[in-house]
Amino acid sequence: MTDAELETHYRQYIRCLNERRLDDLGHYVHDKLRYNGVSETRMAYRDRLIQDVAAIPDLYFDVHLLVAHDQTVGCRIFFRCTPQHEWQGWHPDGQTISFAEHVFYRFRDGKIEEVWSLLDRDAIAEQLS
Amino acid sequence: MTDAELETHYRQYIRCLNERRLDDLGHYVHDKLRYNGVSETRMAYRDRLIQDVAAIPDLYFDVHLLVAHDQTVGCRIFFRCTPQHEWQGWHPDGQTISFAEHVFYRFRDGKIEEVWSLLDRDAIAEQLS
Repeated sequence: MTDAELETHYRQYIRCLNERRLDDLGHYVHDKLRYNGVSETRMAYRDRLIQDVAAIPDLYFDVHLLVAHDQTVGCRIFFRCTPQHEWQGWHPDGQTISFAEHVFYRFRDGKIEEVWSLLDRDAIAEQLS
Repeated sequence: MTDAELETHYRQYIRCLNERRLDDLGHYVHDKLRYNGVSETRMAYRDRLIQDVAAIPDLYFDVHLLVAHDQTVGCRIFFRCTPQHEWQGWHPDGQTISFAEHVFYRFRDGKIEEVWSLLDRDAIAEQLS
């Protein structure tokens, strides 16, 4: 996969998330992966996404910066959304918030096998408190 | 600058930080830049680095993942260090800590003109409290 193909493939993965086609995750994510250093299954990865969109129905992954090279993708994703239910320990009450995620992925054979993600949790906490 | 040249150039910038050659920052950073959405001068950028290494003398920027393409660099930097003095509101007392930074840079004419950085502040807080 060339760098351009990897970028296109990653954007398709993001579209898959935004269109809530979580049954298609198998096209983009290995059965087993590592997330922030911890082994997990794709089903667990999918379950977390399901929880995220249940708490934040308008969650939209907006790619701000994307760098793809040699099986590695780095992405700054921007979110502007309105959490409706408890989410990651926060208790929203209808505020629209915005925050960034900086995330890196290692691909193997065209699928994600490792993820390192940082959320701007300070920004979230400031807006939800 | 090709992607390979950009990667080499960025690694030279990291070496410049690790060797504390902060007077050389002008080779890598524009006079004026934006840092997490806020305009600042290279002198202010340098001053923050000086404060960081004053508080954390053994601060070492260890590149874990690096993606460079088309004037954009994404990097996951890993730190293992022993803060000695107050730093970013934390009051260390001799613990060695480890944490990551996920940072993106936009270059223009071979120099950084914009930075978006997220530190794993939860990990830092957990280890320093």
